[in-house]
Amino acid sequence: MTEITRVALDAMGGDNAPGEMVKGAVDAVAREKSIKVFLVGKEEAIRRELEGCTYNSEQIEIVNATEVIETAEPPVNAIRRKKDSSIVVGMKMVKAGEADAFVSAGSSGAILVGGQTLVGRIKGVERPPLAPLIPTKTGVSLLVDCGANVDARASHLVQFAKMGSIYMENIMGVKNPRVGIVNIGAEEEKGNALVKETFPLLKETEGINFIGSVEARDIPHGAADVIVCEAFAGNIILKLYEGVGDVLIKKVKAGMMTSLRSKIGALLVKPALKETLKAFDASEHGGAPLLGLNGLVVKTHGSSRSKEVTNTLIQCVTFKQQRINEKIKNCIQTDAASAE
Amino acid sequence: MTEITRVALDAMGGDNAPGEMVKGAVDAVAREKSIKVFLVGKEEAIRRELEGCTYNSEQIEIVNATEVIETAEPPVNAIRRKKDSSIVVGMKMVKAGEADAFVSAGSSGAILVGGQTLVGRIKGVERPPLAPLIPTKTGVSLLVDCGANVDARASHLVQFAKMGSIYMENIMGVKNPRVGIVNIGAEEEKGNALVKETFPLLKETEGINFIGSVEARDIPHGAADVIVCEAFAGNIILKLYEGVGDVLIKKVKAGMMTSLRSKIGALLVKPALKETLKAFDASEHGGAPLLGLNGLVVKTHGSSRSKEVTNTLIQCVTFKQQRINEKIKNCIQTDAASAE
Repeated sequence: MTEITRVALDAMGGDNAPGEMVKGAVDAVAREKSIKVFLVGKEEAIRRELEGCTYNSEQIEIVNATEVIETAEPPVNAIRRKKDSSIVVGMKMVKAGEADAFVSAGSSGAILVGGQTLVGRIKGVERPPLAPLIPTKTGVSLLVDCGANVDARASHLVQFAKMGSIYMENIMGVKNPRVGIVNIGAEEEKGNALVKETFPLLKETEGINFIGSVEARDIPHGAADVIVCEAFAGNIILKLYEGVGDVLIKKVKAGMMTSLRSKIGALLVKPALKETLKAFDASEHGGAPLLGLNGLVVKTHGSSRSKEVTNTLIQCVTFKQQRINEKIKNCIQTDAASAE
Repeated sequence: MTEITRVALDAMGGDNAPGEMVKGAVDAVAREKSIKVFLVGKEEAIRRELEGCTYNSEQIEIVNATEVIETAEPPVNAIRRKKDSSIVVGMKMVKAGEADAFVSAGSSGAILVGGQTLVGRIKGVERPPLAPLIPTKTGVSLLVDCGANVDARASHLVQFAKMGSIYMENIMGVKNPRVGIVNIGAEEEKGNALVKETFPLLKETEGINFIGSVEARDIPHGAADVIVCEAFAGNIILKLYEGVGDVLIKKVKAGMMTSLRSKIGALLVKPALKETLKAFDASEHGGAPLLGLNGLVVKTHGSSRSKEVTNTLIQCVTFKQQRINEKIKNCIQTDAASAE
């Protein structure tokens, strides 16, 4: 019998909820038989979206939650007060063991706070990092941490490297993933205080393939599989990727419209271009897991459409089947034991 | 009588020295009558490059320097030991008042160290930042600091904002330039410890147009004219710009080569595309000044070709004519006086 992965999906989170969330769930269950999706949110609204959709009714269930946490709300308060919000209800399902994973395109702050306080950390994990896959010339790299822990300490970064390696090896199938620390030069003596403190620790960490410093310039070229950094730097990397990509693509399009000759050319290159650029689109690669929690919590883009939701839901199945959390637990707790 | 701007150019610095450096100087003096360029470096090598070039001999002079500081050398040692290197000799000319500016595509570390120890800071300036112009959708923004002062303090960032504003207003002609601090969210309460400390200080700084936080995603869209950040973050921004741009352009080119149809299209769009993308090329905008020194020091890309060298040399003329350093001096020293 196939093991079922149960995912609580925040039907109310993100710019395109509930429509694209529900569509993402419907598409996911059509593609993957071993998943069950709980659509958490306002029952009426969800039911309306499900009307007319064809799906295996054993694979989709609505869980009513009457409140919604808005992006602008201060996260700590929101999690504490809105007990019947889709985020709180969904996370509590993970905590209670009724779901294996929670997926949301909603407020990042609330997801980070809720992940730590409602779902809880794996024993020994100091700071759970948010770890999206970012596109590179040759594939993808995992960026840990892209926004959960600003002003992180060296010991946190070492755990990021370990958890990131487990993720890339088991979810993405990268053998012996190369771990690099984001730095402002390739030499070991370069860097800020945090990098200088972390570098020697990473060098002596067993079980990871540390390749040293990675300059931001080389990240898009695929210089490392696991890119370790503090969250302020990681957030800049993630968002600048989007920003530069967005502006450049607009420039390319505008350039193609400047003359009749180029307009004709544009018609000819467009289909091929679209295909190539798809690989460089972050939303193709699903959401960002918050690593190191007692259960899986995944944040998808606020602007997620159904395709990203579907991809993320299906990633949850791999996450469960590959026993990622048990591997993280073993890795972190072995260290704690040997440190005693 | 026109005022002459005297620039000491490191003829030995960068990947394409001395050839492209000398060519850059020859082109600059052809374009700009009020400049005099001292080519600092190995006399023989420079003379060979100058052979066959036509130029006004009153505008170009060779200054012999027998040593070269390599990029890989530890900068402090290199500056101390290689007294007859092009960097040390050129900077000492600025210190002695024999040149107004020093331009180099050589070792960043040596230029930063030499700038501080040989040329020296304007009284009151705590940390001279390296401030390149970065391309945006609509024009350019000044990024301060992109690499001179990692782990900078809040008071340094406030000075970066002031010096950056003076530069953008007087060199680039941007009236009342918008100053933004790089942050991981738009709300005032977001950020790391440094940003949280700096934000209120910038809010109360007189004489600058502080518009608040700028997310990395919005930098390429031209969200602010002066982008203030600590050097580790700034270096990531500068280098990721290059990296993402480089990979995306390669993807676009590869995409165009995937079918016969797209290849024909590529021939038609290429000229228009080249023109549009030129505006998004950092080397079009000259080098990065090290602001706040007793004289002008400019670092150009290690891979600079003659065009970037020429643009940078001509920028030095504007820098002198606009009396940037006197304006910085007045602005910083007024503050120091009012703080007493």
